[in-house]
Amino acid sequence: MRIDIISIVPQLLESPFQHSILKRAREKGLLDLHVCDLRNFGLGKNKQVDDYQYGGGAGMVMMIEPLYEAISSLKQKRDYDEIIYLTPDGERLDQKMANALSLKQNLMLICGHYKGIDERLREHVVTREISIGDYVLSGGELAAAVLVDALGRLIPGVLNDESSALSDSFQDGMLAPAVYTRPAEFLGWKVPDILLSGHEAKIEDWRDKNAISRTRRKRPDLLKE
Amino acid sequence: MRIDIISIVPQLLESPFQHSILKRAREKGLLDLHVCDLRNFGLGKNKQVDDYQYGGGAGMVMMIEPLYEAISSLKQKRDYDEIIYLTPDGERLDQKMANALSLKQNLMLICGHYKGIDERLREHVVTREISIGDYVLSGGELAAAVLVDALGRLIPGVLNDESSALSDSFQDGMLAPAVYTRPAEFLGWKVPDILLSGHEAKIEDWRDKNAISRTRRKRPDLLKE
Repeated sequence: MRIDIISIVPQLLESPFQHSILKRAREKGLLDLHVCDLRNFGLGKNKQVDDYQYGGGAGMVMMIEPLYEAISSLKQKRDYDEIIYLTPDGERLDQKMANALSLKQNLMLICGHYKGIDERLREHVVTREISIGDYVLSGGELAAAVLVDALGRLIPGVLNDESSALSDSFQDGMLAPAVYTRPAEFLGWKVPDILLSGHEAKIEDWRDKNAISRTRRKRPDLLKE
Repeated sequence: MRIDIISIVPQLLESPFQHSILKRAREKGLLDLHVCDLRNFGLGKNKQVDDYQYGGGAGMVMMIEPLYEAISSLKQKRDYDEIIYLTPDGERLDQKMANALSLKQNLMLICGHYKGIDERLREHVVTREISIGDYVLSGGELAAAVLVDALGRLIPGVLNDESSALSDSFQDGMLAPAVYTRPAEFLGWKVPDILLSGHEAKIEDWRDKNAISRTRRKRPDLLKE
């Protein structure tokens, strides 16, 4: 899978892509990540990429032309399954969407800043708008990093133990059950006896019940679907 | 505002905190960010921080003792308004929660990895569990970065133009209206005439209507609340 990210702060993405799972995915050749610096397509001597919004009001808007040129230069080199704009008013990312996107070949991600990008790009060029949640960030870079991480770990071969992702929260429409590790007692706080019993069927049963009661308590909306 | 983040991959957070809004917030002395390396509290020669989960199954669990010690060492130095564990089964972050948290003095964020942290920490030590969305990440670091960014930009004085954050999506329970900037025409795609009219009242009216119709189309759930 190849992912190209268009950003005006490419340096912001350096460390998240050089550690943990994403580092491993890249080293194994399973994820090919590229960050395109939008400034290279900026206009004039100052490499301008943003301007005041039409109609007045606080906050700058990212101009159509530099972004259009950056997107076009990437599209000339390969076909993209989706050209994604990260924006708080997009479709909300969930595990199901992450699963589906992790099967794509080439994705392009556009990181907005300020008040966002010129609406005409959203109408005519962007193929999909995704939000990582109902809150506003200072730019799309962290949203892009979150999306890349959520997808990257689902690519077969990236996680060491592939069965691990299948028991994650949301994969079966439920929250994951409680987990414990050594020591069995710490400051008087004990691990449930059943988990120390070695009785596989009973442990499986406890986990199922724990997942259901947790989901009912914390996220009853998931059970209604 | 001071935020301490406990992580086993502190390097992952370097570049997000050194650019854009968060850099500015730190330089202005408005946001005091510290990343605590959990490895320093690891057990034995290998500085162990995770172990197999009780009851068997794929995926490691972060041990109670190193995290407990790391949290305690920070608590000895100051009082924390909240000790937050970033987890997909926590309360979902939204703009309202971000607004409220941006008023706190000291926050501690705990980044999980693998299958998560030992449940006893969640029961006895963590004061709040927050999710940035319904998807699973390879670790809590990006979730912590998202939370810090969402809060950081709300601290008075961080954004250059403070009225800018007030017109963001979700601040009035609605999505923001479409934005445009120069040129007025590009590849035949035109900016709506009204925004070029200079007629403030009509522009205001157009934006209100645009925000409402956008919200109705993309996020009807927001209007029901």
